[in-house]
Amino acid sequence: MLDGVFITHLKRIYHEQGDIYHAIKRSEDSFSSFGEAYFSTVNFLDVKGWKKHQEMVMNIVVPVGSIKFVLFDDRPESNTKNNYFEIVISASNYVRLTVPPGIWMAFQGITPKQNLLLNIASIEHDPREAISVPLNEICYNWEG
Amino acid sequence: MLDGVFITHLKRIYHEQGDIYHAIKRSEDSFSSFGEAYFSTVNFLDVKGWKKHQEMVMNIVVPVGSIKFVLFDDRPESNTKNNYFEIVISASNYVRLTVPPGIWMAFQGITPKQNLLLNIASIEHDPREAISVPLNEICYNWEG
Repeated sequence: MLDGVFITHLKRIYHEQGDIYHAIKRSEDSFSSFGEAYFSTVNFLDVKGWKKHQEMVMNIVVPVGSIKFVLFDDRPESNTKNNYFEIVISASNYVRLTVPPGIWMAFQGITPKQNLLLNIASIEHDPREAISVPLNEICYNWEG
Repeated sequence: MLDGVFITHLKRIYHEQGDIYHAIKRSEDSFSSFGEAYFSTVNFLDVKGWKKHQEMVMNIVVPVGSIKFVLFDDRPESNTKNNYFEIVISASNYVRLTVPPGIWMAFQGITPKQNLLLNIASIEHDPREAISVPLNEICYNWEG
């Protein structure tokens, strides 16, 4: 695990007409502030990334499909500098991934159907606070 | 339309590896406060409801499948008292439905696959502030 990154197990509540899935409550420890909620989809085997936010805290859940997230820590002062963390999140491994600013992230669609994440972001989208680099700039074997 | 209910058209942003879907930003008029985000699914032709919140403002989007929402206004002082409003929301009619406290709501799954809503709720779930009544207590033809 990387310093400041959290995995929180979330409830799926059975309901006869259709289940309820928790995402995040403001009273939870990993909630910082609310800026924006948006969905991102990622096609089968495609990868989005790398991107690093300088201000945004991301709170990510995957209610549909399955997405592999890879995080890379190059923060100079971090105890986990140069470490990677990876996790596959789906409705069956239903957890919330909290990513603080300063961590590189890329993610890959794992199912041939829809792969959908929700990000409850601490600030509104602002392209000036995000840095993107091409996939091959941070070493990771996406075929693996 | 019912007093205090809003429909907001949302952006779907094309992306080669998978599209982005806006849900809500804190700077938008229909945002009041953030209490909790949760998903609810509803099976094909099943109906969840009726429920009326006494405090919660709901901001609802449907990124997957298609859901029919029916709202009924019995607020004594409302200009739209005894009126109904109905709308089908899906990824292809991608809008946000804002429902203030005091409005009855029920909703029905429209596709045989998954029908998924996200509610960005102004307060955390609290069973004491919600009133439920059986489906047949408010007249509506769900077979229609």
